[in-house]
Amino acid sequence: MTAQRLSGKPVADEIRARTAQLVAGLNRDGFSARLAVVLATRNEATTWYVRSIERAAAAQGVECQVLELPDGTQAQLTATIEALNGDEAVHGIILQTPVPSGVDAAALVQLIDPTKDIDGANPLSLGRLTVGQPAFAPATARSVIEILEHYRIPLAGHHVAVVGRSAVVGKPLAQLLLQRDATVSICHSQTAELPEFTKTAAVTVMAVGRANLLTAHEVADSSVVIDVGTNVDDDGQLVGDVHTASVQPKVRALSPVPGGVGTVTTALLLLHTVQAATKVCQTIMWRGESMSTRR
Amino acid sequence: MTAQRLSGKPVADEIRARTAQLVAGLNRDGFSARLAVVLATRNEATTWYVRSIERAAAAQGVECQVLELPDGTQAQLTATIEALNGDEAVHGIILQTPVPSGVDAAALVQLIDPTKDIDGANPLSLGRLTVGQPAFAPATARSVIEILEHYRIPLAGHHVAVVGRSAVVGKPLAQLLLQRDATVSICHSQTAELPEFTKTAAVTVMAVGRANLLTAHEVADSSVVIDVGTNVDDDGQLVGDVHTASVQPKVRALSPVPGGVGTVTTALLLLHTVQAATKVCQTIMWRGESMSTRR
Repeated sequence: MTAQRLSGKPVADEIRARTAQLVAGLNRDGFSARLAVVLATRNEATTWYVRSIERAAAAQGVECQVLELPDGTQAQLTATIEALNGDEAVHGIILQTPVPSGVDAAALVQLIDPTKDIDGANPLSLGRLTVGQPAFAPATARSVIEILEHYRIPLAGHHVAVVGRSAVVGKPLAQLLLQRDATVSICHSQTAELPEFTKTAAVTVMAVGRANLLTAHEVADSSVVIDVGTNVDDDGQLVGDVHTASVQPKVRALSPVPGGVGTVTTALLLLHTVQAATKVCQTIMWRGESMSTRR
Repeated sequence: MTAQRLSGKPVADEIRARTAQLVAGLNRDGFSARLAVVLATRNEATTWYVRSIERAAAAQGVECQVLELPDGTQAQLTATIEALNGDEAVHGIILQTPVPSGVDAAALVQLIDPTKDIDGANPLSLGRLTVGQPAFAPATARSVIEILEHYRIPLAGHHVAVVGRSAVVGKPLAQLLLQRDATVSICHSQTAELPEFTKTAAVTVMAVGRANLLTAHEVADSSVVIDVGTNVDDDGQLVGDVHTASVQPKVRALSPVPGGVGTVTTALLLLHTVQAATKVCQTIMWRGESMSTRR
């Protein structure tokens, strides 16, 4: 027996269909959505990633504006983000990391208008998410939820072990899971007895960044495992945090690396952008409506 | 055998001593700390609570300014909080709940300057806490940590079960525990198998608001239990979420209600206010210093 493969592809397809529908609505009303990506460094990995966002945006009819500021200073990057906040034609803003040394990235993401913070980078977005107010979650954290919901994995009342406590995956994911009434345990490098959690969890999410960390010894037969890790092994291959060879034959379902969560994130960034644009468009339309009523 | 009693009194005493030391430092430099409490409703419980803060502040040499705006409108309360943000003599701001019906409390707490948000009410404070940036935690959540640290209960690597997921206790407490390298499980009303968590946890924190919810059946002998519940029983007595009669003889240590967490919170609100004032004072002193150097 082998685990059901929780592939990201159909999940991303479904998200792209939702995005397309919203884009059609925007276009009908004479609007279009625009994502701005601020790129403050020049390296192969980030350049490749930003190009992939541009291609995906083009395919969905979303404008993508890349602002290249290699070796940008704090003041330049601050001015750039503030200009994007003030630009009504821009609906989503991403500050691509890493930033040049000496630049305080934390101070920059706090400037991003929460209504345009489509990758949930501003701590205010995370705080709002935590208290249950409307906010965008980081796309990677949200991707895990999209996969679980697409494959109808029940969450309410169930124990979900989140392994990893980063601000971009583990912590926001815990909030998204609590919103869905899961019981959430947050494990990490200092957890004394990891199997105590992963063996009793209905769902285990691995988001640590250590290749092959989760083996068959740490999971129950009935469990669902979502791999969020992105590590490069000795052969230069992309591998997750799950030791696939031993875990896959054992568990009920597994979302693999590659082909899982990573497939979904870019689609979600675009969906978030288009959602933000739709909200702006509705506000403008509503204002227009009430003005014409007044006439 | 009976559990060690984790009383709040010595913890509060210790906090008051820290506050007194900071107040002495402020006074030496010609400064004083001021807490502003915005009171938008008139009822016995809140009036009593605000009076108790005033008394505690007076005892510590902290100024306490109560702004009574019963039936205050959104606009009035907004203007009040903005004025307090802008007032350099005010170092801490509390918006006392409940607010009048029709007033959006969430919109108001988001206005509180994070550097003056000494009860961690602004979601930005919670977000900053979550990503590890300086921020004040809600006093009740922080009180639990103060009790655990005072009695030297080890947290790093240990499993702490937090029962309750409110924005003022459970959720910020989970972040404070993660900061201290605990493995945290967050349980709540929808948790299918609560004992699965509370029986395996080294520490269980009850913050649900249901009298006698945790009984001896749900705890391990070696565990430490912190009761944060405040419920009124049929006889009008204040009782916690822990069924004390059965749990106390079984567990290793118990922080009781009354006499535990509740004893610590007001002391912490004042410590936070004085910490905020000290930071402002140091900035002013430093500016003065650099100005005199320039001469």
